[in-house]
Amino acid sequence: MPKTRVTPQPPPSSRGRQLRSAATRTRILDAAGELFARRGYDATSVADICEQTGVTKGAFYYHFASKQQAFLDLRDRWLAPLDAQFKLTRAEGETLPQVLQRIAEMAQPIFDAVGGEDRQQVFLELLSAARQDPAILPVMLSPRRKYRALFAKLVRAGVAEGTLRDVDATLAADILVTLGFGFVMQSLLDPDGANWAKLAQQGIAMLMQGLAA
Amino acid sequence: MPKTRVTPQPPPSSRGRQLRSAATRTRILDAAGELFARRGYDATSVADICEQTGVTKGAFYYHFASKQQAFLDLRDRWLAPLDAQFKLTRAEGETLPQVLQRIAEMAQPIFDAVGGEDRQQVFLELLSAARQDPAILPVMLSPRRKYRALFAKLVRAGVAEGTLRDVDATLAADILVTLGFGFVMQSLLDPDGANWAKLAQQGIAMLMQGLAA
Repeated sequence: MPKTRVTPQPPPSSRGRQLRSAATRTRILDAAGELFARRGYDATSVADICEQTGVTKGAFYYHFASKQQAFLDLRDRWLAPLDAQFKLTRAEGETLPQVLQRIAEMAQPIFDAVGGEDRQQVFLELLSAARQDPAILPVMLSPRRKYRALFAKLVRAGVAEGTLRDVDATLAADILVTLGFGFVMQSLLDPDGANWAKLAQQGIAMLMQGLAA
Repeated sequence: MPKTRVTPQPPPSSRGRQLRSAATRTRILDAAGELFARRGYDATSVADICEQTGVTKGAFYYHFASKQQAFLDLRDRWLAPLDAQFKLTRAEGETLPQVLQRIAEMAQPIFDAVGGEDRQQVFLELLSAARQDPAILPVMLSPRRKYRALFAKLVRAGVAEGTLRDVDATLAADILVTLGFGFVMQSLLDPDGANWAKLAQQGIAMLMQGLAA
């Protein structure tokens, strides 16, 4: 049979490919988050995620090295609003206590995202999976180091500009991270126990007053 | 066959009975803690605990309404050193910041008790069991309310005596509880991530400096 000559289609623009690729990644993460919550982390396979998203395993593994990596990327997506605050340029005349307060005010979307029964189920599922492989726990908690370094840098800058007391910046950063972590954990384990987002914001404000020069 | 008359033994003293009863309770809790860690909370039955302890189910249910109650009593036993600090009479001339610092210094035995792989396993087991019954989570976290009230009372006394700034005592108590909870949770999830006991002590000391008048 003679081969038919097909007029080649113009290749999709690189920008277009990138957008579609990012959209696929988002859809895979959405599906993974939903399945982890509904069926459990253990009971969800990469094949399930692919079926739900309507993509091939090849597409999944193009974006994620493993199911665990997809979970860790879900976690990072959830923390993105916080990261964005750290990256913001300081406004003219903004003091370090004001910067830290602005970051604390970003607590709300973090808690909104973490709230609800689904998130609690995903969280419990993952901790349950960690029984077989406790090594996953330090990996789950790894963003702590990043935030500790970011907070310590801000506190040092505040001490240098004279708006914060001359405190141990690393210790102050540990307190800030632990306080944030403690409020998020309580919101996961006991969502109805308090207005955690508001409490976190007020708590960090009080801590800031204590650190102010 | 004629009944033989037996000289009645003097009944054990009430004090003796109480001591034996308390010792049995302790042995049941020890066995429960060990089995929860080794086999898992779900996989451990009341019968297993009784067998391990060498007591009847009657004896178990004399001391504990249920397996869950035995777990909650294990938790309370673990928190006992902290409770003891709150109950201590204030030394002559001891200021409220000093009282709070003394309580923070009790962090060590709490972390010693919580440290190690067994505790992590019990913790993960319980959270795993909570997937079926999330209502257990607020119950697990219930001591929070007690410590919040105890800390708030101390902070109010500190404000009244003029050694603490005029802060919202309930909010300060929420920060103290959340900080303690956050450090304990991190020690459970990532035991080797830091010297959590020392960090908790230093962190609370820094917070106290911030609250001092």
